[in-house]
Amino acid sequence: MNFNGIERMGRIQLRVHDFEKSVDYYTNVLGLDITGRDENRVYLKAWDEWDHHSVILEKSDSAGMEHMGFKVTNNEVLDTLEKKIGDFGCTIERISNKSRVGEGEAIRVHVPSGHKIEFYHDIDYVGVPTGRLNPHPWPDGLRGISPHRLDHALLSGDDIVDTKRLFKDILGFVETEKVVTVDGEQLIATWLTTTMTGHDIAIIKGPVGKLHHVGWYLESWHDILKASDILSRNEIEIDVTPTRHGITRGQTIYFFDPSGNRNEVYTGGYAVYSDFPTITWTEDKLGQGIFYHRRQLNEAFGSVFS
Amino acid sequence: MNFNGIERMGRIQLRVHDFEKSVDYYTNVLGLDITGRDENRVYLKAWDEWDHHSVILEKSDSAGMEHMGFKVTNNEVLDTLEKKIGDFGCTIERISNKSRVGEGEAIRVHVPSGHKIEFYHDIDYVGVPTGRLNPHPWPDGLRGISPHRLDHALLSGDDIVDTKRLFKDILGFVETEKVVTVDGEQLIATWLTTTMTGHDIAIIKGPVGKLHHVGWYLESWHDILKASDILSRNEIEIDVTPTRHGITRGQTIYFFDPSGNRNEVYTGGYAVYSDFPTITWTEDKLGQGIFYHRRQLNEAFGSVFS
Amino acid sequence: MNFNGIERMGRIQLRVHDFEKSVDYYTNVLGLDITGRDENRVYLKAWDEWDHHSVILEKSDSAGMEHMGFKVTNNEVLDTLEKKIGDFGCTIERISNKSRVGEGEAIRVHVPSGHKIEFYHDIDYVGVPTGRLNPHPWPDGLRGISPHRLDHALLSGDDIVDTKRLFKDILGFVETEKVVTVDGEQLIATWLTTTMTGHDIAIIKGPVGKLHHVGWYLESWHDILKASDILSRNEIEIDVTPTRHGITRGQTIYFFDPSGNRNEVYTGGYAVYSDFPTITWTEDKLGQGIFYHRRQLNEAFGSVFS
Amino acid sequence: MNFNGIERMGRIQLRVHDFEKSVDYYTNVLGLDITGRDENRVYLKAWDEWDHHSVILEKSDSAGMEHMGFKVTNNEVLDTLEKKIGDFGCTIERISNKSRVGEGEAIRVHVPSGHKIEFYHDIDYVGVPTGRLNPHPWPDGLRGISPHRLDHALLSGDDIVDTKRLFKDILGFVETEKVVTVDGEQLIATWLTTTMTGHDIAIIKGPVGKLHHVGWYLESWHDILKASDILSRNEIEIDVTPTRHGITRGQTIYFFDPSGNRNEVYTGGYAVYSDFPTITWTEDKLGQGIFYHRRQLNEAFGSVFS
Repeated sequence: MNFNGIERMGRIQLRVHDFEKSVDYYTNVLGLDITGRDENRVYLKAWDEWDHHSVILEKSDSAGMEHMGFKVTNNEVLDTLEKKIGDFGCTIERISNKSRVGEGEAIRVHVPSGHKIEFYHDIDYVGVPTGRLNPHPWPDGLRGISPHRLDHALLSGDDIVDTKRLFKDILGFVETEKVVTVDGEQLIATWLTTTMTGHDIAIIKGPVGKLHHVGWYLESWHDILKASDILSRNEIEIDVTPTRHGITRGQTIYFFDPSGNRNEVYTGGYAVYSDFPTITWTEDKLGQGIFYHRRQLNEAFGSVFS
Repeated sequence: MNFNGIERMGRIQLRVHDFEKSVDYYTNVLGLDITGRDENRVYLKAWDEWDHHSVILEKSDSAGMEHMGFKVTNNEVLDTLEKKIGDFGCTIERISNKSRVGEGEAIRVHVPSGHKIEFYHDIDYVGVPTGRLNPHPWPDGLRGISPHRLDHALLSGDDIVDTKRLFKDILGFVETEKVVTVDGEQLIATWLTTTMTGHDIAIIKGPVGKLHHVGWYLESWHDILKASDILSRNEIEIDVTPTRHGITRGQTIYFFDPSGNRNEVYTGGYAVYSDFPTITWTEDKLGQGIFYHRRQLNEAFGSVFS
Repeated sequence: MNFNGIERMGRIQLRVHDFEKSVDYYTNVLGLDITGRDENRVYLKAWDEWDHHSVILEKSDSAGMEHMGFKVTNNEVLDTLEKKIGDFGCTIERISNKSRVGEGEAIRVHVPSGHKIEFYHDIDYVGVPTGRLNPHPWPDGLRGISPHRLDHALLSGDDIVDTKRLFKDILGFVETEKVVTVDGEQLIATWLTTTMTGHDIAIIKGPVGKLHHVGWYLESWHDILKASDILSRNEIEIDVTPTRHGITRGQTIYFFDPSGNRNEVYTGGYAVYSDFPTITWTEDKLGQGIFYHRRQLNEAFGSVFS
Repeated sequence: MNFNGIERMGRIQLRVHDFEKSVDYYTNVLGLDITGRDENRVYLKAWDEWDHHSVILEKSDSAGMEHMGFKVTNNEVLDTLEKKIGDFGCTIERISNKSRVGEGEAIRVHVPSGHKIEFYHDIDYVGVPTGRLNPHPWPDGLRGISPHRLDHALLSGDDIVDTKRLFKDILGFVETEKVVTVDGEQLIATWLTTTMTGHDIAIIKGPVGKLHHVGWYLESWHDILKASDILSRNEIEIDVTPTRHGITRGQTIYFFDPSGNRNEVYTGGYAVYSDFPTITWTEDKLGQGIFYHRRQLNEAFGSVFS
């Protein structure tokens, strides 16, 4: 597909308080598998992911995203990115090999929206339970919602114009959709992808350095219903019940982990290539863009971040 | 994603006899839209594609694939590919601008399996009926099966090892799955992708230069049922009724256009990145790999090509 | 199934103001077919119903339900019901043959909740577009949501205990579910069926003689999504976006016709026979019972009736 | 609904050889729950059934149906049926209370097609795992396919005309569909229901006293796919992969238990009331009637009975 050498959103590190309850939620309700632990962290992966982990839960007094990371094609890309992002003007740190379980070296970028974004290539390989030889399509013994994989995150910040410039112009992400004021002069939100999906990262005008939600991928609208049922059975707070986004066309539910980090499970959407023409939403249609059926935002959408 | 600058399978040119019946089938049963005509050809696109066309129907005495084409990121990629593929040893022609309606320049490669594969960047932009401003998720007035987009083709040939080497080693496609003899020594089939899907092109040992099938993408298993119903109502010959592939995990039906070109509509499957580890099927499990529920090939699978 | 000779909820007559807009909505958005007209009324049926009509729209200054009608097995049942319901103490009128288009004689009962309920056997036969000889499973040319059939209505009233007594003890309906106060002493709502579905009629404590909603049947959760999309495209007000009821387990959306009559499309649910044991919900779980995912009522649920 | 007092197909007793393998299949692959055992039999129910059992597996040297049973509304119906069926000319036996685990008295009828059909009212109540107080829509811990309930059986015999006469004219079943010779003179198969579904029993011209298949109900086409996947994973022989029946419109798969009794899981179909007009299929369209997509019978359909 494109030339940028950035493969996907590969991991997210979430801060959680009430650690045991959080681990129980992410393993038994969301249905991820634990692949590692260290003093303050638990490492997890979705069943259909090959790498060691995609989610890190970190004991903390507050909720939120410690960092999200993009996997790159090889270690040379790290050097290239370090140069390009440095020239763009972001502060960059090198994260040493084995700073976290299963991980190799990474670069850590402080982006204009106030978030830490890492890029890395090396991470241990674990594989999937269905294996690589004459596999069945899905494994026995799935628990809870059991999404296929980590999909994307929506972040909030103040300087979203420069953040978009970094991802689009410097890193070569495709901007699939954007929301602008009715006069077209100000950017309110932007959806950016380095894969074939509608977004790997999206950024919305809002509190600096915050997480709006992190999303996992399900295969079908039927699985969205089943996921909602599982959440209700487990008395998890559901923020937005099954619906379709106008933006990305995806089908979705929003809900909260025990610390208040908003989670999403998501399916559907269109195919994106580097020639995908950006879709524009005007602010007066923002409700329809976010929740296509309700056609207005719920109060939590614009007020609850972590 | 990867560095190769090859965006997707962008078009296929099919030979059809009984031209009027074929055009009726591709527009009213499969549900593509006509975007152009010239003396011997009709040009069509699926509703969710932005470019001028993805399917060309050509009047002919026989069925089959005249060529399939991959869209590349920009015209510089064409030069790079011309050099690399030439070094590999394939015959290459330049196709002039405007040789076909809506198309710019292309390179045309004679690959070892006996097929003509084109690469191109320039093609007219048409857009989608839902537009780019505050769009609805799908348009009014869809006809027939109305897939979202062209997805992939399965070709047959004798020298599939070199063809795989071209696509994988020279062009940088990812081999997602392969079928080998039980002793592991001979390649029987290979699935190759330059996108995030399970395959853009697959090649199977068989008659030289032939088409096994061309596939379009639907959004859901529910749409597979509806597509099957539409085919039966229109008395189209269905080769394989709704099932799942073991290989790619996709959900599928196979059927024939009026000239005997096998068509597929397809949904599901996993996400592929450049680090996707190739899945291996052994020949003794080929039935299960192709048709996961029936677990054996139907007779037509190995005998009907066009 | 049971002995009562009451086949199904066969029709509903709705009062609508803005008549032309209503007829457009019921035909093009909901997707019913017009089968008759007289001075003040339009008669409609869903595509999968055999009788002349199931919906009557009546020009009026206000919204609401003029009456709902149950079809009975034969005309002898009418006599039996007239006797039994008269003995129970309800006022009954005879509606003459041909009082409305396509209809034969009926009895009209003033039930304790303040509604008019008719029972009838004779109604003209129209048939379905797929016919009765080697039919296809669904017809070409469906418009809008195109439900299969009228399914049920939820009515509100004050004397719901006696209304339930009428339907359950006198008419032989099965009470599938009920909501009671936490102490179990007072009935808040009751779901009653004379078929195999979760309810043909439900009654909730509320304003006398009012309609909460009328529901039509769709085949799948996928169709619920498509219906929601169609409503949004047509800018119809959606009251409740796709979700599951705890009560009946059905999958649902609520929305409003142009006059403010709440409509529902609905799918799923369990099988009911005469030995079905009533399921009890306590008032503290009413939110979960009505909307299983949100687990609380929206404001409109308890305040908007027509 | 109708007056006949026959509630549903309530149970089937299947002969199986290889008893342990059969019990494993019915519990772990099909996913029924064991509710009782005696010397030669295991009793099972689907999770969504309230009665003690719906399936009895009996150790035997051969496969086949020992009997199927219809539950009636009360014990008076048994007396009425005994009289009516006796007058019709069938041999009837009384089965004593407690002849099998959990069962009360029954009458056992030798019908013209060569089958034993029982009618009963008394059977122990077990209930469902979700309970009757504020229930969740489905239980935790489902295994295998886990259908909701037993749905219907298709039997074969020679004297299908008299068997149809018994069910339709004497017992008051509705004939929903029939297959006749092209000249309309001979009946080939008939679908009969005493509920709101397309069939509780169907009878086809064929070997006397044999079982073609027994069917269980799933909620959706999505569940049909999942069921097929489960069967393949467990290496169960699938006779017919996911498709739609023309007759009943239902979505289906056929497969075999370890003794060769054909099983079906099934969803969809229309609503039936006593005024449902019989749909006619002519023999030339039988393929399309049985398998709407393939439009021809597979060889096993007409040759494998148990």
